[in-house]
Amino acid sequence: MFITTAELITSISILGTAAFAFSAVLAASEKNTDIFTVAVLGVITAVGGGSTRDVLLNTTVFWSEEMYYIWIAITSSLIGFLSVSLLKKNLVYTVNLYVDAIAISMFAIQGTDKAWSLGFGLPLGPIMLGIITAVGGGVIRDILLQRPTLLLSKELYAIPVALGCTLHALGLTFAPQYSDISAIVSALLVFYLRHLSISKQVQVPRWALISTGKS
Amino acid sequence: MFITTAELITSISILGTAAFAFSAVLAASEKNTDIFTVAVLGVITAVGGGSTRDVLLNTTVFWSEEMYYIWIAITSSLIGFLSVSLLKKNLVYTVNLYVDAIAISMFAIQGTDKAWSLGFGLPLGPIMLGIITAVGGGVIRDILLQRPTLLLSKELYAIPVALGCTLHALGLTFAPQYSDISAIVSALLVFYLRHLSISKQVQVPRWALISTGKS
Amino acid sequence: MFITTAELITSISILGTAAFAFSAVLAASEKNTDIFTVAVLGVITAVGGGSTRDVLLNTTVFWSEEMYYIWIAITSSLIGFLSVSLLKKNLVYTVNLYVDAIAISMFAIQGTDKAWSLGFGLPLGPIMLGIITAVGGGVIRDILLQRPTLLLSKELYAIPVALGCTLHALGLTFAPQYSDISAIVSALLVFYLRHLSISKQVQVPRWALISTGKS
Repeated sequence: MFITTAELITSISILGTAAFAFSAVLAASEKNTDIFTVAVLGVITAVGGGSTRDVLLNTTVFWSEEMYYIWIAITSSLIGFLSVSLLKKNLVYTVNLYVDAIAISMFAIQGTDKAWSLGFGLPLGPIMLGIITAVGGGVIRDILLQRPTLLLSKELYAIPVALGCTLHALGLTFAPQYSDISAIVSALLVFYLRHLSISKQVQVPRWALISTGKS
Repeated sequence: MFITTAELITSISILGTAAFAFSAVLAASEKNTDIFTVAVLGVITAVGGGSTRDVLLNTTVFWSEEMYYIWIAITSSLIGFLSVSLLKKNLVYTVNLYVDAIAISMFAIQGTDKAWSLGFGLPLGPIMLGIITAVGGGVIRDILLQRPTLLLSKELYAIPVALGCTLHALGLTFAPQYSDISAIVSALLVFYLRHLSISKQVQVPRWALISTGKS
Repeated sequence: MFITTAELITSISILGTAAFAFSAVLAASEKNTDIFTVAVLGVITAVGGGSTRDVLLNTTVFWSEEMYYIWIAITSSLIGFLSVSLLKKNLVYTVNLYVDAIAISMFAIQGTDKAWSLGFGLPLGPIMLGIITAVGGGVIRDILLQRPTLLLSKELYAIPVALGCTLHALGLTFAPQYSDISAIVSALLVFYLRHLSISKQVQVPRWALISTGKS
């Protein structure tokens, strides 16, 4: 490989940060918010999942020592603020879903990786913290904007993230020397499953839906 | 006693974990969710209150070293998923309330106990963390499912938990040698008051309701 | 000065605690809650922002060592509970906004100050934690009460807090020997801007509002 795993993980999480902040602007554009609220929401969305992960790991929150994550989130929010009016309404919706998909792919793997390197509750702990890193920021964003969280949608959302984190945990267990390949493949798996859900309306199979005694 | 206090507390919190995860499935069955979301919600509900407590205690989150709590929550969620269709709609509602009552009784006492043993802000701190341990997971569940939190219901909810935690704090202060009896009696008090509220519609007395200048 | 900066900061945060707890009662009076729920909400609102700050700082939560904050919050909640019926409906609304304004002015500066003294991610970190300290408790209150958070209102809310925290951060950077004056001026700035927003309906300027492709 031309870059180290650490560099790859850093690049991945920078791209994820920008994508998540951008997604917050798109989500906030449904409400009448202003440029400052957008920046606040962008930062919370971008670093909310990772902050929750770090709080649960009882470690220093990552952005206090790597402040460029905050600047990236603010910059991405402002670019989103300026460009959102140029996007068509239904296009905004689709772009939002894909940008969110990129972000959760990145953060799922990066969160699993960090918890693994700290030996947090192996092997289930890193998978859980990977999910929290990926989904946490978006869930906080949805709660603050009073939208139904994506957890409740019929789309494949929790499943792709959980599968990707599990795959990366398997990779780290059985082939730690190929951890960077495991990271890339796992992130691509998350993104591909989200893509199937968004573009082909692949939904959760019927047997996996909760059935109440209604019918 | 035939079992130690530590064993009793562990048994109590295992039962509470299973009950809380089950309650999340019942709550989620009102929405069209899937098996994976149910498991995620079950785990968050089951360990959300205790995790919040441990984060405030600035200590290691309990489940990172006792991963069986997560497995219990997942198993209980899956059993709930499979059995919820067998339950009638109004039965689900009542069962949900009672299962929730068992869980909050268990967690209130266990949370008070843990904060007390760490000497956290005695004597009020353990009572507060007991309430957070008991109510936190359910409140997070309700927020994620966009339901009104049980804090807002007219039923006795905050009061039983607060009384039980206070009783246990009194027990730990004045009769520490009988801490296991204090734990059992306090948990039973919480459950009994919740039972009165559920079965007899015992509500908060009128003088305790907030009165606005409307009438 | 007749009092030290530490004494000033303590006085400020005690007043802020009482104000925030009172605001929770006023907000809760829109829902039919009871005296215990009001006290729980009052405490959560009063110490929620500061607790979030301390959790992110990975330090001991402030109230575990200074339990009088909890007693102040409970007392203020009970006073609010007893007095809310004496207030007229539209008066409650205005008082709520001003009480909230006092609280966020106090907490913004106190949060910035604490993060600064711990050297947390200077210079942006203290500004962020100041905002979280100020806005966190109220946001948690609004989420628990299922109200739209003030973040989403068209009023100036995030902006005054952010400007005040930034001013105090500038003061601490360039004139640390006048940190108490910086604290007072910055808190007054936050309050004055909130006052303009409340009394004169000064809103976010049009260019700062998010514009979607609708019109």
